[in-house]
Order: sequence, then structure tokens, then C-alpha cells
Amino acid sequence: MKCRKCGEKAVINMRQHKLALCKTHFLDWIPGQTQRFIEKYRMFGPQERVLVAVSGGKDSLSLWDILWRLGYQADGLYIGLGIDGGLNYSSESQRLTQIFAEQRDLKLHIVNVLENYGETIPEMAQRTTRGKGKPCSVCGLTKRHIMNRIAREGAYDVLVTGHNLDDEAAVLFGNTLNWIPGYLVRQGPVLEANRPGLVRKAKPLCRIYEREMAAYALMRGIEYIYDECPYAEGSKSIYYKELLNKLEADRPGAKLSFYLSFLQAKKNGLFAQAADPDIELLHTCPTCGQPTSAPGECAFCRMTVKIVE
Amino acid sequence: MKCRKCGEKAVINMRQHKLALCKTHFLDWIPGQTQRFIEKYRMFGPQERVLVAVSGGKDSLSLWDILWRLGYQADGLYIGLGIDGGLNYSSESQRLTQIFAEQRDLKLHIVNVLENYGETIPEMAQRTTRGKGKPCSVCGLTKRHIMNRIAREGAYDVLVTGHNLDDEAAVLFGNTLNWIPGYLVRQGPVLEANRPGLVRKAKPLCRIYEREMAAYALMRGIEYIYDECPYAEGSKSIYYKELLNKLEADRPGAKLSFYLSFLQAKKNGLFAQAADPDIELLHTCPTCGQPTSAPGECAFCRMTVKIVE
Repeated sequence: MKCRKCGEKAVINMRQHKLALCKTHFLDWIPGQTQRFIEKYRMFGPQERVLVAVSGGKDSLSLWDILWRLGYQADGLYIGLGIDGGLNYSSESQRLTQIFAEQRDLKLHIVNVLENYGETIPEMAQRTTRGKGKPCSVCGLTKRHIMNRIAREGAYDVLVTGHNLDDEAAVLFGNTLNWIPGYLVRQGPVLEANRPGLVRKAKPLCRIYEREMAAYALMRGIEYIYDECPYAEGSKSIYYKELLNKLEADRPGAKLSFYLSFLQAKKNGLFAQAADPDIELLHTCPTCGQPTSAPGECAFCRMTVKIVE
Repeated sequence: MKCRKCGEKAVINMRQHKLALCKTHFLDWIPGQTQRFIEKYRMFGPQERVLVAVSGGKDSLSLWDILWRLGYQADGLYIGLGIDGGLNYSSESQRLTQIFAEQRDLKLHIVNVLENYGETIPEMAQRTTRGKGKPCSVCGLTKRHIMNRIAREGAYDVLVTGHNLDDEAAVLFGNTLNWIPGYLVRQGPVLEANRPGLVRKAKPLCRIYEREMAAYALMRGIEYIYDECPYAEGSKSIYYKELLNKLEADRPGAKLSFYLSFLQAKKNGLFAQAADPDIELLHTCPTCGQPTSAPGECAFCRMTVKIVE
């Protein structure tokens, strides 16, 4: 198989795009695609300040690398969750993220959950009833809160995450299997900051396959944490990814077409305006100032305040 | 495993309902459920005249049997498609349907496509470009046309089909994978006759698993055609059914929950009114009088008129 651009030996064949590329052209192609999606979905412009949520994994570090190469003003945010799982998961991912930032002379914010809120994520999960023993729900709530807080405190214009196509397709698949109106209506490459106190969110990699992101990180020589979060094992999202991988193997491009036809149907007005739950975010948390759906403290402050008391 | 109702030995265990039943109670339970769904979705009442589209398969014959036992005024409609496939598919299914109707002294309309329109379905498919060599598209168009025609000519209040939960979930899955707005908005247990010339359609078995319908037909001693249509092999709907079966095996009830959460989301107003393509059926075919989306003859009349010329 030869590179479509130069005829040299190809290192990757993307069946869904009918495109094979050599290393040089693949490492060019991924940032080019990312730039295209940033513009197409109006995620942010070169004048805007971008905060990249980095976990130390292949997707977020590659995204940061790509934005840096594309010339965007992108700082990083690493959240120390205090997850060990027998493999020093959090400390190892933080170490790799710091090395990455130092190598490129990039600014990295670090927020340690234990230091800031008195407990690690697994400890919080054990104490609260949220998530039935699994820390994933507590972790998601905490990350959303901190990401929005740091973005606001630093006056960033947009918060970006490294969600790739496989992530987005799996989320969409889950939301579709259960037909959760609010999630369906809100899912997309950009979530506008349509309430005071909320920052715009964007996913520049949402149309790039996970396999391509792994190839990018490897070819670019980015050192990232290979392990999944130890709590991810047996998760629904991994199950949905496997199912979609089976579909993709039988029909190359199925994942992409699932996601793109969803975006198209949404753009064409499939969903009713009233189905958007954002209209519920009418209140402001008196403790943190972030929007919340009910009067009084938001879910995050209610969860963490107990420790401070 | 014992029958929940009487404690006798159960013959079927329905994991998704956490319900095991003996033969007697299962043969009671299926019509009871059907009656419940007929009422819940306001499909039709005891005063209304029902036309059952019967193919000779387990679902449609069982449905007819159930409606007869429930005391509804249900006549049958068998459409002779002229499909052989090396197994006398059409003639054998017609023979079984006729035996079924005679045994119960039920009225059966028979429409033979070859006699009425000059060609069998496979011949029509070969002549036209519709469906790229596969007769399924031509067959669907023809059946929809004839079912509506006979229902109108016979002044039936409602046309019912034997689509079971697996059928409906597979259709929904396909429509979701491709996010086809029109199909999504219209799918449901009842399709109202909201245009002149259209008859109401209903699917009383839409919440009953295929496996349960097969068990019903067997236990009731209904002789039906076991073979799938020879053209169904390799079809998307069978592929989607297999995928959903895998999901169901891992999470009993997944198929039902997928379908029910869709219906609930739709009822709660997920979809925009404007996404309903029924508003496009503004024209009347000058040849057959059925509604059509464009001025002039409908797709069926355009397809068949060529033979008559």
C-alpha cells in the first residue's frame, strides 16, 4: 500500500476514508483535519485563549500537541484525581503530562482534588451515594466543575477536550439506546456557553477515529499513559465501543456515518427546541457561582461541602 | 422453573419480564398482552373492522389467531407476490394461510400480484431500477399500495401487521444508525390516517419478542411457513437483529427498553413537528387515488403502468 500523497510506503490505511498515508503525510493530515473541524464547527479562532483538559492519555496530549503546532494559544489543565488502582494511575499520568508541557514550554495548570477538596475521587465516591460504589459519576461531576472553574478564573474563551470519534459515537449510542432527550439534544462538537458562568466547550477530535489518534501519538513520539483508568473496566462506554467496533469491521465508516448523520439530522431540525434541558439552568450556585438546575447549592458543592463542615 | 401463575412446570422463561409460565398461562398471557397494547396505544376498538395483513409466517398468523380469540372483527389479506426461491415460497405460504382461515372460518382476501399487475415481484424488480437488483424495495412499495387499497375498498377502519418487537427494534436501530428524520418521527405502534385516502395502521405485537411469538405459534399448533423470504438473506434488518440479539443476551430487556424509551421520548416531545414528512403527502395520485408526495402518478402506479402500456 502506497501513500496517496507521495507514493512512498504507507504506514496507515484508513478504510473509511479510502486513504493510505506515509508517516510524514499522516502527521500532516491529522492537524489539517483538526483545523478543518475547528473552523467548520466554529469552535474557536486564533485570537481566542484555549484551555485544553489533559489527562495524560493519547487523545488529550495529542490534541494539545496539534493545537500548539497549529499556532493556537492553548494552555493545559491537569486534574489530579488521586486514583491509584495499583498502577499509580494519577501520579504517572501527571508526570507524563508535565514532561509533555515542559518539552514544549507550554503552560500547565494543575488542580489536585485531594488538596483542594480534602478527599481523592475514590474517597469521595465511597462517602457519597452517587454512582453506586463506582467513582465515575463523582469523577465526572468533579471534572466538569473544576474545568469550568479554571476556565472562568483564567478568562479562557473555550475549554477543549480530547474526545475522539469512538468516544462520541459510544456516547451517542448509549444516549440513543436509552433515548435520553437532554443528552441527545446537547451532544455535538461544540456546546455554547449559553448561560452566565458557563464556558464554551469544544471537541476538535470528534471526527477522528481512536485508532488514528493512537497512531498519531505513537508516530509523534508522545509519551502517554497506556492504561485505561482502572475504574473504566466493565464500563458501558467500553461495551458500546466494542459493539460499534463490530459494526465498523463489517461496514467501514459506520461509526463516522452514525455520528455525522446524527449531526446532520440535528442541524436539519429533528429535535424540538423545548427538548433542550439547558433551559433548566436558571439558577446560580451561591457557593461557586456556576449555573445549576435547582435553587440552592449545585451538586458539586453539596457533595464537597460535607468535608469542610 | 415453575409457572408464576399456577406453580406447574414452566415451558418458557422470559428473562426481560422476570416471568416464567406454563403452556396454558403463556397461551393466555400473549393475547392478554396484545389486548393491553391495543388499548394503550388506541389501535382500534371492538366495533371497528380490522384487516390483518397475513404472510403465512408465525407473527401474522398468530396475530390473526389472537385477534379472533379476543373477539375482534378481523379479516385477512394475503398478497401473492410470486416468489419461488426454489422452495415454492409464495404458494406454500398462501396454502398455509388458506388452511388457517378455513379452520377458523375467517374471511381471507387474496390479491395476486401477477394476475393484477402482469408481473411477479421478482420480475418487476428485474425490469425496474428500484432497489438495485434486490426485490425488497419493489415488494415493500407494492405491499403498502395493495394493503391500503384493499383496506379502503373494503371500508376497513384499520390495517394491522404482525411486526413484533424484534422487527420494530431492528427498524429503529437502522433508522437511528442513519438518523433518518422522517422514519424516526413516524415509527410507532400506530400510524394515524392523517391524509384522505390513507387508512390507519397498527402493530399490536410491537412489544412482544420474536421468540415469544414463535413459542406462541408452536404451542398453539399454528402451521406457518418456517423459511424466511429467500430474498431476506444478508439483509440489513437481519444484521441489525443479530446485533440487537447480542445486546439482549448481555442485558436482558435491552431491546424492549430501546423501543420503549424511544416511544417515551417521542411522546415527551423530543422531535420537532416540522420533521414529520407526512406533511409532504399533499397530492393525490390521479390513477389510484392514494396520497403521494409529488404531483402526478404515485411511485407504485409509475412502476406498474409500464406493463399495461
